[in-house]
Amino acid sequence: MLAELSIIPLGRGIQLSPDLGQILKTIDESGLRYRLTPSGTCIEGEWDEVMALVKRCHQQMRVVSTHVMTTVRIEDELGADNKLNDNIASVERSAGRQLKH
Amino acid sequence: MLAELSIIPLGRGIQLSPDLGQILKTIDESGLRYRLTPSGTCIEGEWDEVMALVKRCHQQMRVVSTHVMTTVRIEDELGADNKLNDNIASVERSAGRQLKH
Amino acid sequence: MLAELSIIPLGRGIQLSPDLGQILKTIDESGLRYRLTPSGTCIEGEWDEVMALVKRCHQQMRVVSTHVMTTVRIEDELGADNKLNDNIASVERSAGRQLKH
Amino acid sequence: MLAELSIIPLGRGIQLSPDLGQILKTIDESGLRYRLTPSGTCIEGEWDEVMALVKRCHQQMRVVSTHVMTTVRIEDELGADNKLNDNIASVERSAGRQLKH
Repeated sequence: MLAELSIIPLGRGIQLSPDLGQILKTIDESGLRYRLTPSGTCIEGEWDEVMALVKRCHQQMRVVSTHVMTTVRIEDELGADNKLNDNIASVERSAGRQLKH
Repeated sequence: MLAELSIIPLGRGIQLSPDLGQILKTIDESGLRYRLTPSGTCIEGEWDEVMALVKRCHQQMRVVSTHVMTTVRIEDELGADNKLNDNIASVERSAGRQLKH
Repeated sequence: MLAELSIIPLGRGIQLSPDLGQILKTIDESGLRYRLTPSGTCIEGEWDEVMALVKRCHQQMRVVSTHVMTTVRIEDELGADNKLNDNIASVERSAGRQLKH
Repeated sequence: MLAELSIIPLGRGIQLSPDLGQILKTIDESGLRYRLTPSGTCIEGEWDEVMALVKRCHQQMRVVSTHVMTTVRIEDELGADNKLNDNIASVERSAGRQLKH
């Protein structure tokens, strides 16, 4: 399945990238496939391994903030195990050749 | 500002890519800068132009489905006009050199 | 249509309720029907009036923070204009009489 | 912590309430405290018990659809264990006495 993870700590500065950089290291070390996007991080894997990583990231952020908002958006499709690449490819294919940008 | 757009029509097939491909054409033709991700589309621009595009995409999906769920996640930071590229770069920079993947 | 609004300002304290109380006043004064939930505010109305209110709330939060994350989740169904009440009622009806809590 | 759960199955009808009613029964039987809102269900509890319930609900929806989108929005604050009631109360208190609706 695909999970898009976004974590926002309260009571921190105006910039989140220092905190999010530490979370990214945890994701990177997990060994699960992932892709950073401008609005979150997409992670691919089985439910239990993805959710264990989500918990680890959330708890890590709770060390620097006592109040954390975490959003997980899951897309789970039977037989699909490469949504990290296939989702973009299939939408672009459906859009056809006319894309300008 | 940055807006991440995700549109889900009800009462359609098990695959969304045919419908989403048509939406992607509309986004592409808008002239606004965007990036497709595995879980949605990130669009950058001023509030009014981005929200006019979001409305156009939503209404377009309403033509093929009478029941549509649309999610818009906005990140708006004073003076930032290239979050499409800068967000990923600044998080990766904070993570440092140790990333393995 | 129904829109669920959630606004998070960065660089503020560990508690959001002081800032969110001010936003609630703006929503209340709009005259649109709404319902506060534990995780956001549901607002009902036509696209343009709801989105004008969302913009007003977002801009108001931008006065106290230069970096604001706003999420809008829209559910738009042909002919439905009372989702604020009907959604809960129809799900509970489908669940049947067996609910214990 | 508080978790807001929203589950959308693809390839189903234009109405979600029949499927969501079945999910509501599972939530109700869990014994965890919850509140249905117009846009989802808020559940309160410890991480592991809430996430086990989220998984159960998601898997249950996967029985009727091979392609399911599940969103979990978590708010986790040190020492807070009644956000189901306290969040609404504290925002209304901050808004003050002037609310008209």
